[in-house]
Amino acid sequence: MIELTATLLTTYRGSVIRDWVDYNGHMRDAFYLLLFSYASDTLMERVGMDAAGRAASGHSMYTLECHLNYLHEVKEGASVEVHTQILGADAKRLHIYQGLYLAEGAQMLAGNEMMLLNVDSAGPRAAPFVAPVMENLRLLLAQHRTLPRPSLAGRSIALPGQP
Amino acid sequence: MIELTATLLTTYRGSVIRDWVDYNGHMRDAFYLLLFSYASDTLMERVGMDAAGRAASGHSMYTLECHLNYLHEVKEGASVEVHTQILGADAKRLHIYQGLYLAEGAQMLAGNEMMLLNVDSAGPRAAPFVAPVMENLRLLLAQHRTLPRPSLAGRSIALPGQP
Repeated sequence: MIELTATLLTTYRGSVIRDWVDYNGHMRDAFYLLLFSYASDTLMERVGMDAAGRAASGHSMYTLECHLNYLHEVKEGASVEVHTQILGADAKRLHIYQGLYLAEGAQMLAGNEMMLLNVDSAGPRAAPFVAPVMENLRLLLAQHRTLPRPSLAGRSIALPGQP
Repeated sequence: MIELTATLLTTYRGSVIRDWVDYNGHMRDAFYLLLFSYASDTLMERVGMDAAGRAASGHSMYTLECHLNYLHEVKEGASVEVHTQILGADAKRLHIYQGLYLAEGAQMLAGNEMMLLNVDSAGPRAAPFVAPVMENLRLLLAQHRTLPRPSLAGRSIALPGQP
């Protein structure tokens, strides 16, 4: 019997540069999203939407929505990586969760839930994923569904005890 | 009778530079958050947490969480501004909503709901706002409570029709 061992995709590896550090001496909130943004580019490449795939199909992905939780400070020079889980997909949308970690570390520094939209660049207008991309997404989704759902997915922002 | 006319704070004005534009020919998702991040710096200045205020109190604000909705593409050279509404606060936390607009435009290009935490930089550890900052926040909150609540505040991310 073949056993599928599902693992998250590693979609970014790099080091925190000085330009990303703010007056608090740690990485500015927006640059966490820059790393997650680069990671979603890697995911696009992984499913057939690299530059060649985008040129062939005329399609790209746009970010519709994202939700970040900041759990730990990240300092200049830190080696970090992003792991990505596919949470769901429909004909035009892709729902993912990304975690930022220290390289080979187990502690999540920040999480990013994201909804992406497949777009026909000629419009630009929403369009169904082309078949080979949809097939790649289905295969990944089948694997990633067996993994625990991220505890921070589906959150909304609110002050404790206030409406 | 004195009538208070509440208005949002304008917290950022600038133009979209080439470095912020990605392979889709529009501003990359992360750089929307960079503008919102600069806007939250302006809000900090407005309530007494500029560099001098931070040095005097030993406190700063860290981002705990943010949720962005991307509504329209923004192209290189666009003149944009951010308007900020205070939604709530407690002793240590500040809940805000920021909208990105074309300069003098009425159409929101993107929205960002954000939760910020007051931090004693010596720890760093969560700490109550110092009194003059809390008073400034209370005054702004009293005004901003009279404004309509942003329709995208409190959202969570989900695929339509899926759990």
